[in-house]
Amino acid sequence: MREWVIGAAQLGAIQKSDSREAVVGRMIALLDQAAAKGCDLVVYPELALTTFFPRWYMEDQAEVDTWFEREMPNAATQPLFDRAREHEIAISFGYAELTPEGRHFNTSILTDRQGHIVGKYRKVHLPGHVEYDTERDFQHLEKRYFEPGDLGFETFDNEDTLMGMCICNDRRWPETWRVMGLQGVELVMLGYNTPSINSQNRGEGLEKRLYHSELSVTAGAYQNATWAVAVAKAGVEDGFPLMGGSIIVDPDGFVVARTETESDELVTATCDMDRCQFGKQTIFDFARHRRVEHYGRITSQTGVKR
Amino acid sequence: MREWVIGAAQLGAIQKSDSREAVVGRMIALLDQAAAKGCDLVVYPELALTTFFPRWYMEDQAEVDTWFEREMPNAATQPLFDRAREHEIAISFGYAELTPEGRHFNTSILTDRQGHIVGKYRKVHLPGHVEYDTERDFQHLEKRYFEPGDLGFETFDNEDTLMGMCICNDRRWPETWRVMGLQGVELVMLGYNTPSINSQNRGEGLEKRLYHSELSVTAGAYQNATWAVAVAKAGVEDGFPLMGGSIIVDPDGFVVARTETESDELVTATCDMDRCQFGKQTIFDFARHRRVEHYGRITSQTGVKR
Repeated sequence: MREWVIGAAQLGAIQKSDSREAVVGRMIALLDQAAAKGCDLVVYPELALTTFFPRWYMEDQAEVDTWFEREMPNAATQPLFDRAREHEIAISFGYAELTPEGRHFNTSILTDRQGHIVGKYRKVHLPGHVEYDTERDFQHLEKRYFEPGDLGFETFDNEDTLMGMCICNDRRWPETWRVMGLQGVELVMLGYNTPSINSQNRGEGLEKRLYHSELSVTAGAYQNATWAVAVAKAGVEDGFPLMGGSIIVDPDGFVVARTETESDELVTATCDMDRCQFGKQTIFDFARHRRVEHYGRITSQTGVKR
Repeated sequence: MREWVIGAAQLGAIQKSDSREAVVGRMIALLDQAAAKGCDLVVYPELALTTFFPRWYMEDQAEVDTWFEREMPNAATQPLFDRAREHEIAISFGYAELTPEGRHFNTSILTDRQGHIVGKYRKVHLPGHVEYDTERDFQHLEKRYFEPGDLGFETFDNEDTLMGMCICNDRRWPETWRVMGLQGVELVMLGYNTPSINSQNRGEGLEKRLYHSELSVTAGAYQNATWAVAVAKAGVEDGFPLMGGSIIVDPDGFVVARTETESDELVTATCDMDRCQFGKQTIFDFARHRRVEHYGRITSQTGVKR
């Protein structure tokens, strides 16, 4: 399938006390809306099943683990998989993954239109910090609760379209997009939980935060000639505001659909995958134009070296 | 010096028949304006001394070589260097360079405020094609007349500020920005000659072309927490339109100055280099957040591989 009707299924706030079952009910409601609009694929946010728990400092690992899923699908999410299969809609969403080996990842999965998981991604660029930080307005403890993803940026053939995933902070790193671009990616899906306030610079403001998110996604789409879908968990979670601004972006880097609220909200776009070809064959024909002999620092050093 | 008043000195059209002396006269007029506004640094476009000659198909190498400079400064440009030294203004501009060994590069240089050349860059990402292309609305023969730059993306300490350069099409490649970002760059200067029309897609339109240029520069600045100055040669050269849209961009990716015409035009901004620090120390602290183990494709392969 080369022409996909895609839904960006933004979720509003999920409070600490909300059950996974309640959230899955909201996700199914959005899925039904998507079916009515003819969607073939619906993308949900990062950590879609729970509140953004990395804002809470926890020392008890058993408590931490209550925020994680030990299998997927599981009892709470099975109804979502079932409904998606009924509608013949592929889905992608994020969740906290606890592996049988006891490893913790910030993960997202992709299904085909028959409800089979055909792709998994584990977040590579974890923002934030490990220990309680008294300098911040609030905590962002992703580096405490997750280890960096070990799967890299794979792409997956889903009914003749090449799809990839990344999560939240990954979108700000051009390396994320390029590694998928170098596989010929045609659709990048990502979810995010982005505080409306910079915990280290209160003056930054919502408008600037939205701009930076959109700038990163539109540049990544344009420079790799790929469709992109970026989906927020938004709204005020137990007093902490998350921004919205979910977008669907075409392979020219233009926003073609955008949410307007900070609540549960679906926006859709018809995405012709063949529109990726012009960019990939002309200005971003990597084989003709890239000069890897001058890119060495990108892989040979991590931090700044003069 | 950590606070620079920077001028983006856009040039309007240069016709095929215009002499270098006439163009240098226009560049000096902009320099005098810049001095009156207190500028410490003025950035001019790519191939600032001549028309954008790669639009013309030539088979006679002697004719091609008439568009190149064999030394810098030379008789035509010495008055610009002299005036810059008088004003104590550092300058950067682009020109076609023919080396003593007979090599051809699309080059830009940077001087200090005493008129000494302290940095040189040779364009790495050459767009266009080698042979006459009957499919295009007009020719873009950079791959015919230049070889790819051999100097990489170096940075230069200019009075306690770390400066780098790239040229035109380089700005669309995130690798360009990242290689300089990994050296801690604080100011990226670039000139461009960008046709207002896509020679392979007439429907694209000026607005889209301006958007793509600005998107690339603002994303590069934001994602590397660096100032950026992007300067056009604009206007209609012998019937062929070049876009304007010269901008100065802050390390948050926001445009702080922008030209409004397609003619000779100076815009300025006061650029505090210490404003790069917040981004470099937080969200884009490369040492803490980059995961080079997943970036391998960026340097190990040139084109797309599934």
